[in-house]
Parts: sequence; structure tokens; C-alpha cells
Amino acid sequence: MEKIKITFLGTSDSIPTKLRNHSAILLSYKNENILIDCGEGTQRQFKSIDLSPTKLTRILITHWHGDHTFGLPGLLQTLAMQEYNKTLKIYGPKGTKHYINLLKEFVNITIPLEVHEIENKVFIDNPEFYIETKSMVHSSPSNAYSFVIKDKRRLEKSKLKKFKLPNSPILKSLQEGKDIIYNNKKIKSSQVSYVEKGKKVTVILDTKLNQNAISLAKDSDLLITESSFSIEDKDQAEKFKHLTTADAATIAKKAKAKHLILTHISQRYEHNLSQMEKEAKKIFKSVSLAKDFQTITI
Amino acid sequence: MEKIKITFLGTSDSIPTKLRNHSAILLSYKNENILIDCGEGTQRQFKSIDLSPTKLTRILITHWHGDHTFGLPGLLQTLAMQEYNKTLKIYGPKGTKHYINLLKEFVNITIPLEVHEIENKVFIDNPEFYIETKSMVHSSPSNAYSFVIKDKRRLEKSKLKKFKLPNSPILKSLQEGKDIIYNNKKIKSSQVSYVEKGKKVTVILDTKLNQNAISLAKDSDLLITESSFSIEDKDQAEKFKHLTTADAATIAKKAKAKHLILTHISQRYEHNLSQMEKEAKKIFKSVSLAKDFQTITI
Repeated sequence: MEKIKITFLGTSDSIPTKLRNHSAILLSYKNENILIDCGEGTQRQFKSIDLSPTKLTRILITHWHGDHTFGLPGLLQTLAMQEYNKTLKIYGPKGTKHYINLLKEFVNITIPLEVHEIENKVFIDNPEFYIETKSMVHSSPSNAYSFVIKDKRRLEKSKLKKFKLPNSPILKSLQEGKDIIYNNKKIKSSQVSYVEKGKKVTVILDTKLNQNAISLAKDSDLLITESSFSIEDKDQAEKFKHLTTADAATIAKKAKAKHLILTHISQRYEHNLSQMEKEAKKIFKSVSLAKDFQTITI
Repeated sequence: MEKIKITFLGTSDSIPTKLRNHSAILLSYKNENILIDCGEGTQRQFKSIDLSPTKLTRILITHWHGDHTFGLPGLLQTLAMQEYNKTLKIYGPKGTKHYINLLKEFVNITIPLEVHEIENKVFIDNPEFYIETKSMVHSSPSNAYSFVIKDKRRLEKSKLKKFKLPNSPILKSLQEGKDIIYNNKKIKSSQVSYVEKGKKVTVILDTKLNQNAISLAKDSDLLITESSFSIEDKDQAEKFKHLTTADAATIAKKAKAKHLILTHISQRYEHNLSQMEKEAKKIFKSVSLAKDFQTITI
């Protein structure tokens, strides 16, 4: 199975640091290159690791706070200069169309855009993968996203040989999980095929702890969440509707995720990152902290 | 005399590179910290060299193209978060008020702003320094700026002693260049004082070669100009209304500047920078290329 590659292009919270730029995550799978949020300076983050933003197919905006979106005007302008020749699809919560229209007054956007406001639904669905969004709870409308490669039934050559099955449309039926009759003999799909398990990556950025986050993250192979606050600052997290390390770990635990990566790291913890990790580990073992330019392939 | 300190926060042209961020120059003199242009990512450039943008007093915008201004929303938002407590004065060409109003729809700007559209005038003038702008010729209204510390007459203690002049209001007259009568004897100001020469820094960004550029740059101690194109690409420079290396050197030569620094360097010349310098040197000797985070004190 082709892998999903995650590249962290920015892992800071609202104020960038020497080591961390504003939020941006690139998810690549086959021909899809999906940018999740686009904080200020994202186009230069692409440059810094020799990636070209012209390969982008979609941009998913979690919410329209500046630290997640101020890189958009520059990115769109640069794509135009670099003769981006596809239709760039932009998805986001309520308000997305308004903000894109405002952007157009600022930038002469010459590339074709398709803008979608989406809420609590599977909004991309094809035979290979789907993308789902659920609404989070933050100080402005906020979406979280799951990218899911579907399970796929694969035929086993050796078993097809055993049953002496010819290369004909009956293979397609078996591959679709249907049982068939061949030479007056019933052959079950499961006798000649197996199911290759899909993969699920979920990205939950600015939000307070909520049930939608847990249900969206259900059974994720990789769960990426914001973690703006240490549990020591949980009053602040509550006030500004953000996750603490413990909230993030709680989502991962309840959703039975395989691995959790914390991002949206505040400069206030820059010298105490191991403490952040420890706090989360008390609740959920498989956890790590994101770094700018880190890549993960699953 | 207190020095002027120039910090190059960004020296790329419209597309940033690994080594160069979008245009931004910080000019510091005593309590003044003046930012000239604010390309995307400028707030992080401050961070990268441990400077605080909260010390800013004024922002001068040369023109409203994105590569010179897309860092503004993020910078203004961060200043608000960091409790910037002065009135930030923003100056720029025609259109500046319109763009700041657009910005306000995007960002909740909670710091007090004072916005000025200026054209061909001395717009700051106090006993110590003045700032002048002249209109350039680009594809959108574009200003260039000179920061000028005025000449200052200074009294010489040893000579005051020689004439046995007491510490009285007559010293003020002499210091102002006026001759006086003391003990029935005429004392010329020039006998007891000297003129400390001021300093002039001129910043000329996006423009094609024009007479205003030469007159604004007149006698600059330091002239900083864009240099988007090599002379080999002068057709492109003409088309997009930019300076070539030769144009920049011509301004420096005709203006009798002391030193020229080229900035707004395109990625297309990144591997041939010495060629850019050579081209300019054929016309004007004292020339160098700016680098991000370079500082110059004059």
C-alpha cells in the first residue's frame, strides 16, 4: 500500500519562535498534496526543505485565526507567479468564503480557486480514500479533519492458481468481496483474497476538549492534535478554548489512536518540552512532540 | 554622534529563499525604531535575532505589493498580543489607508494606529533628524525614503576657555551659529565651535530608474536600493519597472552616495551574486550585496 507522508511545516502556536513557524501540515498521498492550515511564512517553509507548493491539490483550513491563515495571501500569489495550472480547492468552516473574498481584495489571485464551506461530513469520497470533517469548539468556527485510506480487498495469486481461476471478470467480483460459482463450484471471495487494512490520520487543531474530537479521531493510526497548554495552565486552556497535554492524550486514549503527536507548541514551554510529553504520557503512552520539518510516513 | 543602525530583516525579491526572507529593513536611531516594509515572515525574522517588534515606533511602506506588506497582519496581531502600548505610526503612498482598512477586516487590530498617506515631502522634522519621501516609478504607487540626521554645531570647550566665556545664555547663541559681542569684543561662532556633519541613509525599493531617486539619494552616506535584475535581464527590469544592478549603481554615482548596498535579490541570481556585484562596480565602486540579518552602523 502506498504510504501517507506527513510533513510538519510549522508547529508553533500564535507566536513563532526561532525553531517553530506558524501552523501548517502537509499531507501527501499519491497525487494528493493537502495543506492543513497555512500560517504566515508557510511558503518559505516549503522552500526551506525544497518542496514546491505548486504540487498542492487542496488546502484545508481548520479556522480563520491569523496564526493558521496569514500565509495564504503570499502562497496564492507565489502559486500564480509559478504558473500553478490546476484548480486549487480550499475547504474550511463557515466564514471561509467571506475570508477568501477579502483576500481577493488584497491579492490579485489569478489562479482558479474552488472554495467550500463544510461542516460535519465526509466531503471527499472516492474508491481509495475519504476526508471527513467534524466541528470543534473554539473561539471561532473550527474544523478538524480525518484523511482515511479505505480497506482494500486484494486477490492472492497463489490461491487463484489453486482454484484454476482464469483472468476474467469473475476476478473483479471476487475482488469486490462477492462469492461466485465457477465450474459449478462455489468459491468464496474470502478463500482467494484478503483485506488490506486502510490507514487513518486525524488532525485536530485549535479546540477545547469535546466529543466530536474523540469520535473523529476513532481508531486513527496517527492522531495529531494541538497542545497549546500544559496541564499546569489548564485555566488558560479553558479560557482560550484550547487543549492541554492531558486533553490531547485523553482524546487519543478514548479514540484508541495508535500514536499521538502534539503540535501548536507555545514558546512558553520551549525549554520544558519533556515535561509536556511526560504529562501526556501519564494518560496515553505512544506520544511525541512535533518539530518543524519533521516527516512521518505511515 | 549617536549612530544609525540598519538591520536587514529580509533581502529577497517576490519569492523568498532558504537564506532570504521578503523585504524588511529596520532603521534604529536613539529611541526610533523604524521598519521599512514588512514582507511575510518579518515578525519571525525579529525573533530569529532576538529583537522585539514592540520597540517599533514607525512603519514606512514603500508600496503595497504583497512581498513588501504581507507580514503586516501578523506583526500587528503579535504587537497586540504583546501589549504594545504606543501609537504605531504607519506611512505609505496613496492607497495606504485603503489597505489598512482592509487589514482591519482581517485582523482584530487592537493597538492604536495613525495612518498617513504621503508624497514628495519631508513628513517628519525635528531638531535632530528629518525623514523625506519622494515618489518612485513602479507598477503601483511607490515611495522611497531618506532618514537624515541634521548637521549639528558643537562648542569646543578648549576654545571657550581661551576666550574665557562663562556658562551663560551666550553659549546657546554661539551654538546656534550666531556671533556675539562679549566684553566689547566680537566673537564669531566659528571661532569656538565646529559643525558635526549629519548622516543620511536612503532606501529606494521597487522602482525603475528615475530622477527622483537620484535627487532623494543626493549625498547619502548609505544608499540602499533594490536590484531585482542583472543588466543581462534589463528588458525584464524595464517590463516590470525594476532597477538593474547598473541602474542602482547609476543612482549611487549621480547622487554621489558614499556606499551602495543592493537588496531585493532574486533567487535567479543566488548562485551568481559576485556577478551582480561586479556589474554594479563597473559604474560605482563602493558597493555590496545585502544579506539577511546583516547589520550596518554608520
